[in-house]
Amino acid sequence: MEVQIAVAKVNKYAISESGDTLEVVERPNGGLSVVLADGQTSGRGAKAISQMVVRKVIGLLAEGVRDGAAARAASDALFTEKQGKVICTLNIASLDLQSRTVVLTRNNPAPIFICRGDRIDCLAEESIPLGTSRNLRPLISEVAIEPGVIIVIYTDGILHAGKRRGTPMDVAETIRSVLEDQDPGPQNLADALLAQAVRLDENRPADDISVLVLKITSRIGDNVRRMSVRLPIEGYTRE
Amino acid sequence: MEVQIAVAKVNKYAISESGDTLEVVERPNGGLSVVLADGQTSGRGAKAISQMVVRKVIGLLAEGVRDGAAARAASDALFTEKQGKVICTLNIASLDLQSRTVVLTRNNPAPIFICRGDRIDCLAEESIPLGTSRNLRPLISEVAIEPGVIIVIYTDGILHAGKRRGTPMDVAETIRSVLEDQDPGPQNLADALLAQAVRLDENRPADDISVLVLKITSRIGDNVRRMSVRLPIEGYTRE
Repeated sequence: MEVQIAVAKVNKYAISESGDTLEVVERPNGGLSVVLADGQTSGRGAKAISQMVVRKVIGLLAEGVRDGAAARAASDALFTEKQGKVICTLNIASLDLQSRTVVLTRNNPAPIFICRGDRIDCLAEESIPLGTSRNLRPLISEVAIEPGVIIVIYTDGILHAGKRRGTPMDVAETIRSVLEDQDPGPQNLADALLAQAVRLDENRPADDISVLVLKITSRIGDNVRRMSVRLPIEGYTRE
Repeated sequence: MEVQIAVAKVNKYAISESGDTLEVVERPNGGLSVVLADGQTSGRGAKAISQMVVRKVIGLLAEGVRDGAAARAASDALFTEKQGKVICTLNIASLDLQSRTVVLTRNNPAPIFICRGDRIDCLAEESIPLGTSRNLRPLISEVAIEPGVIIVIYTDGILHAGKRRGTPMDVAETIRSVLEDQDPGPQNLADALLAQAVRLDENRPADDISVLVLKITSRIGDNVRRMSVRLPIEGYTRE
């Protein structure tokens, strides 16, 4: 099998720094974790918050701390530092080769979609961002690692897209229309969701938007791990 | 402009854990850094060493510490912990949007190749791995961020490929042959270098191999950052 992860990320219109931070870390017992945080407001302040949360979580995961405990620790640290005045959403998606599951940890009002064949499930139980209180409980779900599973996670830029104009985004419908294509890659799905959100915001995203798609395929190929990053350099293109 | 980063990574034959660790971190003042470390020997022990070094470097970079200082700190920490008995190579490639350069930090005997058009330069000045002594000096080079620049970094699995059979790899020649194609993507180049090394090892890599390619293009597209990861799950494919 092969796990494919794709991320598409865009800043709020006219803001040079995204308040969303996403990083990938290898787990000490194999597998990897993707950590996505969205700091309150936008720009530099939000970036500092989401980076602090991601850094805390990644440091703990790298030491072998379990995902739920890492989320709680980051929440307490944020609450202590900002006295409950600043919140930050957090999602962790971990490929855990010991439990043979994808472990999904969520402190984010935005739901998670899980697709298997024609079925699209939505994890939408109420979930509270980090930093609001002590003893915050993350929601944790486990999904067996098996071919055909697709998991879609995003920040609230998708939730808010188009809302100002009364045309909110139907995420499930967008996912369904992409999945009707012949076995779309995860990057196609992430790009399509982001593009739809940007379109609903009339090409001026009202918030930072990040979309993370995990896909498990039955592909048996070489044993090569691959990663690619594409980073547009703003400012340079204007010269 | 757009910066494209590609990584291809394979384990030593019959070893389930790579001693090479590669991670990407966002820099607090914009841009990002790719950190690649290769711990002595292979398997679990080597992994622990390279993870420790990468974690140390990434933590410091995230705090705004400069690359050279982060490399020195990681070296001192490794030397202190292992009393000079364990070594680890380190490469940092940073996209520094303030200096408008790619900053290359090297504590690795393996050279770095820098390609511009038909020209392929090799940074091969002697460089010593971390952990061998106190006051280790990393080699630091800066390359202006401009379209057409391609940077190739790798661990010593490439250096050793084919050596046992008296057929060492001509990295510059492999790069040249790939670049003769029409504007190859960085993943193509990374994959080609890795494939050539594995071929020279008769499909049983004698060491962990990691190849990192950075390419700067003049592409002006959307302002979307993208990342993708492909992770084969060994063990599962055998069921």
